[in-house]
Amino acid sequence: MATLSIPNPVPSAIEDAEKLRKAFQGWGTDEKAMIAVLAHRDAAQRKQIKIAYEEQYKEKLLKRIESEISGHFERAVYRWIFDPVERQAIMANIAIKNKVVDFPVIIEIACINSSNELLSVKQVYQSLYKHSMEEDVASHATGDFRKLLFALVGTYRYDGEEINTELAKTEAKILNDAITKGEYNSDEIIRILSTRSKAQLQATFNCYKDAHNLSITKALSTKTPNDFVIALRAAIRCRTTPTKYFEKVLRNILQKSGMDEDALTRVIVMHAEKDLKEIKELFQTRANMTLEQAVAKKTSGDYENFLLALIGN
Amino acid sequence: MATLSIPNPVPSAIEDAEKLRKAFQGWGTDEKAMIAVLAHRDAAQRKQIKIAYEEQYKEKLLKRIESEISGHFERAVYRWIFDPVERQAIMANIAIKNKVVDFPVIIEIACINSSNELLSVKQVYQSLYKHSMEEDVASHATGDFRKLLFALVGTYRYDGEEINTELAKTEAKILNDAITKGEYNSDEIIRILSTRSKAQLQATFNCYKDAHNLSITKALSTKTPNDFVIALRAAIRCRTTPTKYFEKVLRNILQKSGMDEDALTRVIVMHAEKDLKEIKELFQTRANMTLEQAVAKKTSGDYENFLLALIGN
Repeated sequence: MATLSIPNPVPSAIEDAEKLRKAFQGWGTDEKAMIAVLAHRDAAQRKQIKIAYEEQYKEKLLKRIESEISGHFERAVYRWIFDPVERQAIMANIAIKNKVVDFPVIIEIACINSSNELLSVKQVYQSLYKHSMEEDVASHATGDFRKLLFALVGTYRYDGEEINTELAKTEAKILNDAITKGEYNSDEIIRILSTRSKAQLQATFNCYKDAHNLSITKALSTKTPNDFVIALRAAIRCRTTPTKYFEKVLRNILQKSGMDEDALTRVIVMHAEKDLKEIKELFQTRANMTLEQAVAKKTSGDYENFLLALIGN
Repeated sequence: MATLSIPNPVPSAIEDAEKLRKAFQGWGTDEKAMIAVLAHRDAAQRKQIKIAYEEQYKEKLLKRIESEISGHFERAVYRWIFDPVERQAIMANIAIKNKVVDFPVIIEIACINSSNELLSVKQVYQSLYKHSMEEDVASHATGDFRKLLFALVGTYRYDGEEINTELAKTEAKILNDAITKGEYNSDEIIRILSTRSKAQLQATFNCYKDAHNLSITKALSTKTPNDFVIALRAAIRCRTTPTKYFEKVLRNILQKSGMDEDALTRVIVMHAEKDLKEIKELFQTRANMTLEQAVAKKTSGDYENFLLALIGN
């Protein structure tokens, strides 16, 4: 479930546009008023506000926001304001164009969505960038990452429930053979992980666990994990246990020294309107503090206020 | 343009179903009557006939056809009777399940269709086989063929016209470097060929030709071509000059010793309702005989009559 909270009754898009305009005007920006509007409207409502604002004031809302605020707060608002499909297309493009492809973003988008949801992201990606997501991934990623990310993004997977138990056994063995030999970049691991349906993959991983008394992700927990093994584990967890995956991502960000604001923004912005409630509940059990407390400890100012509003504070 | 000819006015589906029923009954099958109906109706009409037949006579039309006729004639009717999307899904599955993946079928289906057409084929494939086409290609093909076929099938390509001329130059050079070194199975050749849009690919091949005074397909005409190089050339030609490609396929089948009925059936059945007219005209120029004459020389009986009817004789 979502953590996004929307007032009832919700103001009209024209009223919201007026409030934003007022927040932008005068000396400084009224960030609290901005957050009160933007962090409490769903994707369809935000879209209507954008249209109303641009009709009324003859300026692009996004451009105005960029000129009014800055830093992590600006980046978070910029990501939040789009609808989920457009947002993912934009985030995928930013991740691909990074000096080194920001693989967690691509893995999450490729693995969390259903086949048709991912297809919608790819369609919007094409309309925005006049390229396919596949060609950009393939031409920017290199080596093993190219193989993995291309296969994850490229496969229009079967989303149905039918599974083949014999195949699950065979492929659990193939996975174990590769892992035992330390061949984590094996074409077979990549093939199974990227092309099999969620139900089939789950059956394979269950066979793996039954045979080796060890989960596949644990088996991939090498002593000195390299980025590729980290990517494999992320893909496995996004495809089979996404709530646990995102909870762990949040814990890694919020409980370790250092801080990755882009990752924190990404997880909260992408899930606030979807399933952040489950992630947040799991976080509280695992981290012995609420997600709000953890976010408040590591962030500050308008960025903090904005994230807390999305988390449902 | 199509070569399929449909009578005007066209009989109702119920009348056609009756004619088929009559053709099946009695001593032997009246193949001529079957052909007169089935080879002169478009996909939508064939579907209606199937429905009308099954409602009227409480038996599956396809099962009945299979029990009435045999050999190449049966295989051709069996392929023809489906609508183009379902037909391609079935043909892809047969090709994948072949002892060695029948790569021309997969290459043609992956490269001739627009992105959305290919997507439709993949959707029907999933509903028929409860698997994705990608996972079946990836788990049945091996080695370099797996890489090529998976990438061709997996990419939801950009179908627009926007191109990047600098990129075309860079990638023409990448292609040339790989070809010069004889590295035909290079990941870069596969990447460019499978992920780039048709317009971008054409620009790249034009740059290649300008720089080397030689077309890319000629550059790939090795003295002793292996199957993989043949596959690369087929993919290039399907993606850029499909009419020429299919004309050449027909000439290879019909003018060489030996005979590949499955390939002949495939090309005629897949194109009769679409663009066989252009292919046929080109054939006549190149082969110094009409396609009808060439087909008549190499086939016989009902199979011959059926193909000739589809060719528009």
